[in-house]
Amino acid sequence: MIVSALLTSVGINTALCVLFFTLYSLLRKQPGNYEVYMPRLIAAGTSKRRSHFNLERLVPSAGWVAKAWRLSEDEILSLLGLDGVVYMRLITFSLKIFSFAGVISILVLLPVNCSGDALEEIDFANVTGSSLDIFTISNVKDGSNWLWFHFSAVYLVTGFICFMLYKEYKYISARRISYFYSSPPQPHQFTIVVRSIPISSSCSISESVDSFFKDLYPTTYLSHVVVRRTSKIQSLLNEAKKLGQRISQLQSDPSQQNHRHGCFFGLFGRKSNLRDHYEKKLEDIEENVRLKQSEASLAAQETQAAFVSFKSRYAAATAFHLHPAVNPIEWTTEQAPEPDDVYWPFFSESFMRRWISKLVVIVVCIVFSILFLIPVVFVQGLTNLSELEVLFPFLKSILTITVVSQVITGYLPSLILQLFLKMVPPVMEFLSSIQGYISQSNIEKSACNKVLWFTVWNVFFATVFSGSALNQVSIFLEPKAIPQKLAVAVPAQASFFIAYVVTSGWTSTSSELFRIIPLICSLIRKPCIREDDEFEVPSFPYHRDIPRVLLFGLLGITYFFLAPVILPFLLIYLCLAYIIYRNQYINVYAPKYETAGKFWPIVHNSMIFSLVLMHVIAVGIFALKKLSIASTLMVPLPVITLLFNEYCRKRFL
Amino acid sequence: MIVSALLTSVGINTALCVLFFTLYSLLRKQPGNYEVYMPRLIAAGTSKRRSHFNLERLVPSAGWVAKAWRLSEDEILSLLGLDGVVYMRLITFSLKIFSFAGVISILVLLPVNCSGDALEEIDFANVTGSSLDIFTISNVKDGSNWLWFHFSAVYLVTGFICFMLYKEYKYISARRISYFYSSPPQPHQFTIVVRSIPISSSCSISESVDSFFKDLYPTTYLSHVVVRRTSKIQSLLNEAKKLGQRISQLQSDPSQQNHRHGCFFGLFGRKSNLRDHYEKKLEDIEENVRLKQSEASLAAQETQAAFVSFKSRYAAATAFHLHPAVNPIEWTTEQAPEPDDVYWPFFSESFMRRWISKLVVIVVCIVFSILFLIPVVFVQGLTNLSELEVLFPFLKSILTITVVSQVITGYLPSLILQLFLKMVPPVMEFLSSIQGYISQSNIEKSACNKVLWFTVWNVFFATVFSGSALNQVSIFLEPKAIPQKLAVAVPAQASFFIAYVVTSGWTSTSSELFRIIPLICSLIRKPCIREDDEFEVPSFPYHRDIPRVLLFGLLGITYFFLAPVILPFLLIYLCLAYIIYRNQYINVYAPKYETAGKFWPIVHNSMIFSLVLMHVIAVGIFALKKLSIASTLMVPLPVITLLFNEYCRKRFL
Repeated sequence: MIVSALLTSVGINTALCVLFFTLYSLLRKQPGNYEVYMPRLIAAGTSKRRSHFNLERLVPSAGWVAKAWRLSEDEILSLLGLDGVVYMRLITFSLKIFSFAGVISILVLLPVNCSGDALEEIDFANVTGSSLDIFTISNVKDGSNWLWFHFSAVYLVTGFICFMLYKEYKYISARRISYFYSSPPQPHQFTIVVRSIPISSSCSISESVDSFFKDLYPTTYLSHVVVRRTSKIQSLLNEAKKLGQRISQLQSDPSQQNHRHGCFFGLFGRKSNLRDHYEKKLEDIEENVRLKQSEASLAAQETQAAFVSFKSRYAAATAFHLHPAVNPIEWTTEQAPEPDDVYWPFFSESFMRRWISKLVVIVVCIVFSILFLIPVVFVQGLTNLSELEVLFPFLKSILTITVVSQVITGYLPSLILQLFLKMVPPVMEFLSSIQGYISQSNIEKSACNKVLWFTVWNVFFATVFSGSALNQVSIFLEPKAIPQKLAVAVPAQASFFIAYVVTSGWTSTSSELFRIIPLICSLIRKPCIREDDEFEVPSFPYHRDIPRVLLFGLLGITYFFLAPVILPFLLIYLCLAYIIYRNQYINVYAPKYETAGKFWPIVHNSMIFSLVLMHVIAVGIFALKKLSIASTLMVPLPVITLLFNEYCRKRFL
Repeated sequence: MIVSALLTSVGINTALCVLFFTLYSLLRKQPGNYEVYMPRLIAAGTSKRRSHFNLERLVPSAGWVAKAWRLSEDEILSLLGLDGVVYMRLITFSLKIFSFAGVISILVLLPVNCSGDALEEIDFANVTGSSLDIFTISNVKDGSNWLWFHFSAVYLVTGFICFMLYKEYKYISARRISYFYSSPPQPHQFTIVVRSIPISSSCSISESVDSFFKDLYPTTYLSHVVVRRTSKIQSLLNEAKKLGQRISQLQSDPSQQNHRHGCFFGLFGRKSNLRDHYEKKLEDIEENVRLKQSEASLAAQETQAAFVSFKSRYAAATAFHLHPAVNPIEWTTEQAPEPDDVYWPFFSESFMRRWISKLVVIVVCIVFSILFLIPVVFVQGLTNLSELEVLFPFLKSILTITVVSQVITGYLPSLILQLFLKMVPPVMEFLSSIQGYISQSNIEKSACNKVLWFTVWNVFFATVFSGSALNQVSIFLEPKAIPQKLAVAVPAQASFFIAYVVTSGWTSTSSELFRIIPLICSLIRKPCIREDDEFEVPSFPYHRDIPRVLLFGLLGITYFFLAPVILPFLLIYLCLAYIIYRNQYINVYAPKYETAGKFWPIVHNSMIFSLVLMHVIAVGIFALKKLSIASTLMVPLPVITLLFNEYCRKRFL
């Protein structure tokens, strides 16, 4: 890829970003879009749905940027809980490490790379026409002593990242502890979930739970609730909740109150009838629920799971940590999830079935990853113009136009890939949901891990070792040759990944601000539904956004010494993300449950993986560049990094 | 190796075994050897040291065999605790699985192998002159359908072994639970060890432990003892204990009582003086101990570790399972070991120092394993007669004698290897002891694991892939080629391992009975020491004997379908071990501490490893024999086995 192609891509994406920013600044002021751009504020009641028309509404303004910038961490904590803080700290952490790496690589490594003349002399008159490769390590001659700068940079940046990782982990675990200290006692903290309760023929499950825990914890046991199969009651209750909301809306909505007074004869009569009708319906449902409840209290509806409550949080923690039964796969205990966090379908499953479904999900994940490679490889083929011309000969005339060819090589491939990747988080979330978890936060954490490794595999490794899936897997079956193969393949893809950061990073972040899909949905829905329908405030999709930032972290860490040019683009992406997500925190998302910072270990592990991968590439690169001393001296670094990781694992549980 | 060489080896070893058995039957009756052959009985007081001379003492008898045979499992439990039971069950387990495998392989596989004619037609007239290879799978033609017998045998035996492993694990965990139910409350069950207590400047460690646990467990906390540096007191106490024993011996020994009455004037005077002298000395020591104790109570002698006792076993278990501090590497808790089991040196070490010493030990273990290969490879060279002739030309005339050459090829190599391996268990025990454990049982368990993997690596893999250590390691860096390389190398060493079972197995077991080293030590010591000196009853060296049996298990499992001839020799070994160890349980060993069956997971994991290794070899063999369907159909088997292992790990914690 030549410099001008990259610049075209940068230009297109900058234009897109500016467009999105302007449109957002304009559209967010239109009351019709409040549900899309500030659902959180509407739900909290701080923003009215309707406001009088004024001219200001038509002028885009950047006030929201300043507002987002001023948001303090304690405000984030109160807005989105500890998980929101963790995500924001991931972004600031990445900003810090890549600023440090950026200073070193732009000031030291980039001049070194450019001054090398392994590929071609740099032609300052015609920079745009020259290949991007002259800015990379490929331009340094084999065996050149200038490579020691790269060597030192690797050691220096690794040291800095490890130091920052330690500091960050320490900060987050301190935050986590202070969160637990400051949170008021909540019912779910006094409760454990017991699953795989053995069925005895002589008594019901409820009785056996009662006698079991009364025996074990005579002084601290409080009560228990056996989980019952009540899908019908659940749907009735949901309906009742909806009706209740509607009635309270009818009663309290000030705008409708005004309305009522204005058109006394016409509308009030209808409203009143509507309210009566709703209340009548609600009573019917109440009756129905009672009926079903009395049915459900029969023993036949009991599942082999129960919530067991204790008199103190300490007693609940004890009961959770000390396994109560002789057989470890019976009476399995877990901490009870928060009420909003409970995921019901897998309460009744036995230990064996949960284990088997977990195994099946793992196999499906692997198969999905391998099948997914086919479109990725196809997309990779698109970056190669000549291949495209062979495939679609009728496009030849269009492809020869410079702008088109530059768009195709610089922009299209990553966009298509991006669209394919959009479907991965929901698929992974679905797979995690059938894995046997009983809380949505665990499902999301597991999905986050799955999406992360899927992305690393299918974006990073598939691009680096483009070829068939089997070919790619076979590389990892010969561990001895990995550094060498990585050293050959990774620098070759530098320009693709720079373009990827620009396309995928910049545009996806701005479209997150613009919320294209919810906007379209809202536009489609608007004519069909009444305005006073209830709507849900979305929760932050950690399993989609954390892996994305971590992938860019991986790209930054592995490429900072190979192709320093990637770092400025990455830093711009991170700055965009910093502002945009803070704005979305204020306006859009509301927390649904709280894992209290349990996403951080995923971030930590991913960073350590990136570091070790970078070291392996460095070992290969220095061997390839015929600087075998540097290659050998690089070997202790991954070992030290892994030891550091091991220490962190012990230090921050 | 030809059949006659094997027969020579079998002959020599059978003769040795018979010799050891006869000598043992004779020597064990001599009162002078009671300390060597029945220390346990002497210590228990059931056997007198002296008995009158009679003719029976000179006639070897086999009464002890019958006695050992009749020993029931409950008796073993009372003699050596649950660990003794686990070791004996390991032997009976091996007997069961190899009887099953033996029936299949001798009745089905051996005839199939012999009827194959890939190498040569079997010559029944001259069986002794033919190579052992005609009894192995090498004799079956490539692509022959007869190989499906081997295929079925692998599936059948794997299934049987997994079934037996499950049954056995279930039995042992049931035994373990009943052991805990039946054991009376003991002080160490009410106690936990707390290490890495942070030093505070304002109060002593004792005070901070007290306030910490009083805060956390106000109702259940009982008391604590801070560990102090008291090496001098320990040595004084040891001396006092010795003196006390001697005094009580002087007072109570009935033979000496008789003596005293007999020689009233002569001996009694001296004895009395001796006793007075001892008692005087004991008083001095008591004084000294008090002095040192008052010194040690100063805060300066406190280490950062303490025993904390609770009012109930349940409270102690809770305190152990719930980590008390915010920082996971401070206030680390462990279950207190039994009083006899405590290993003091590492109580005061900080978490970091323990962690680093653990890492260092791991590195040292790896280096030791690699350096150890040099003598093994040299020994391997000895099996090759022609090489020996080149190295030592002056031996040429001796080496040409048939008997000598057969001794050298059949017996010497494994004997030398055996002698080298003798030093491994003590070395590994030493390495484990500096790893930071605070109980001897943990040290022994860790040493057992180390010795096991050392033996598997240095006996099995070093023999199979004879060559330099680096060459051997490099094989494992290309995982794809492993099955093929194993399939070529493993069957080639069949005859060596058959000879190894005969030499190492048979002879080492008989020498265990004969207790050569303690016998020699006792013969040397006898003239120097007084007869009434105290002596120690030895404890069973699990870390030496469990890995040995497991290595033979590995050989049996991997070779049963390659070279079925190995199984009869293995079964003889196991029968010998069965009788001999039961006899040693009765007469020699006394339990020092109780891990309550914690050695079984090591056995289980080792068996699973052997099975998977066997499957990998089978995959390679069938591919090599050009039966690729069988090779492919073999692939699910290791996966199923590993899943079975995973299930067991969850089912039996």
